[in-house]
Amino acid sequence: MSIVLFSCELDKAMAALVIANGVAAMGGQATIFFTFWGINVLRKETPVTVNGKTFMDKMFGWMMPKGTDAVPLSRMHMGGMGTAMMKWRMASKNLPNLPGLLSEAKRNGVRMVVCSMSLDAMGLKMEELLDGVEIGGVADFVGSANECGKSIFI
Amino acid sequence: MSIVLFSCELDKAMAALVIANGVAAMGGQATIFFTFWGINVLRKETPVTVNGKTFMDKMFGWMMPKGTDAVPLSRMHMGGMGTAMMKWRMASKNLPNLPGLLSEAKRNGVRMVVCSMSLDAMGLKMEELLDGVEIGGVADFVGSANECGKSIFI
Amino acid sequence: MSIVLFSCELDKAMAALVIANGVAAMGGQATIFFTFWGINVLRKETPVTVNGKTFMDKMFGWMMPKGTDAVPLSRMHMGGMGTAMMKWRMASKNLPNLPGLLSEAKRNGVRMVVCSMSLDAMGLKMEELLDGVEIGGVADFVGSANECGKSIFI
Repeated sequence: MSIVLFSCELDKAMAALVIANGVAAMGGQATIFFTFWGINVLRKETPVTVNGKTFMDKMFGWMMPKGTDAVPLSRMHMGGMGTAMMKWRMASKNLPNLPGLLSEAKRNGVRMVVCSMSLDAMGLKMEELLDGVEIGGVADFVGSANECGKSIFI
Repeated sequence: MSIVLFSCELDKAMAALVIANGVAAMGGQATIFFTFWGINVLRKETPVTVNGKTFMDKMFGWMMPKGTDAVPLSRMHMGGMGTAMMKWRMASKNLPNLPGLLSEAKRNGVRMVVCSMSLDAMGLKMEELLDGVEIGGVADFVGSANECGKSIFI
Repeated sequence: MSIVLFSCELDKAMAALVIANGVAAMGGQATIFFTFWGINVLRKETPVTVNGKTFMDKMFGWMMPKGTDAVPLSRMHMGGMGTAMMKWRMASKNLPNLPGLLSEAKRNGVRMVVCSMSLDAMGLKMEELLDGVEIGGVADFVGSANECGKSIFI
């Protein structure tokens, strides 16, 4: 299955990874294409020094959420309180969390591809993203969707 | 067609049901997987007494929209005014409404599956949801998408 | 590929067109179904005089964004400032813009279909939309998804 993750929201990123891991658990091949805001999910938490960033790139980097722990809920974020409550709630019920789902996806062989155009738009460099992530373009998504015949956009 | 309804918004729920009913009308099999916020669309309007709910479960239940009449528009909700206006507008033009689309889907044999993990995250029990709804997991969605080859995420 | 564009947001409309153009560039057939809010992306910027509009239709027309230049970002719109900044940013990096992607899609033979029910709900007439757009219904989407086997909902 080819999954486009366009959003940088906790709940939507979890949905993408739960589905990808479900596909992998059933013996299938899943690829997640991180585009536009979605790339922020893959950012490293610790600052990475990168050359060649404009002032605007830096400002964008500062304004966008930094990785799995920083992404907000799409509803009921309530200045962070709702998101914290939901994380605590899901942990207390032994439900999965985003960093855990991401590690599981890596172990399961889920391919993770970052859209090169979006990387440029967001002003991010590959060094700022988690390891084990490939770079790709829209042709990769279309090719993968053609091959597997199933695609979703989150 | 396998449709994931992730949102609890009036317009998106209507889109899911219009497509599912369209598939059914053309002789196909449609399944809607209600996940995360989407489960709230299926809540009964009248309160149901359920045992074993924590304080947090109750609080979530109180904060989330309760069924087809309570779900807001994704845009122009304007504290309820925009949503009420849109409903009135669509009724006056004889366009479908959400409760009507849901009954039609049942009559048409559209399968409605609720994600068990999301039920847990939202703190809801099956008794609080409309009748005729099944419980399932991510494997059901992946299996159904594999079988029919077409999936969308709303 | 059958693409449903449900949102009238700049970033999501661009995603739909980038994917459609990608499919066309690889020799495939792409169709975009503009539904609900998505129709606003196709509105002409200059006012068109149309008969038979109710007061509510006019009010909706006035409240909804008018075409490719008016649609906001789904995040960081910040009263228009964030959207203007992103447009300027993408132009300075030679990344595509929405009017350009729309012209490219037309040249590439991407089919653009407007949902008749949504047109009614939004209170818009075909004369108010860009040229080269067809009118259709949910059956067209289901038929097209059946034929090509790949569908996404944006």
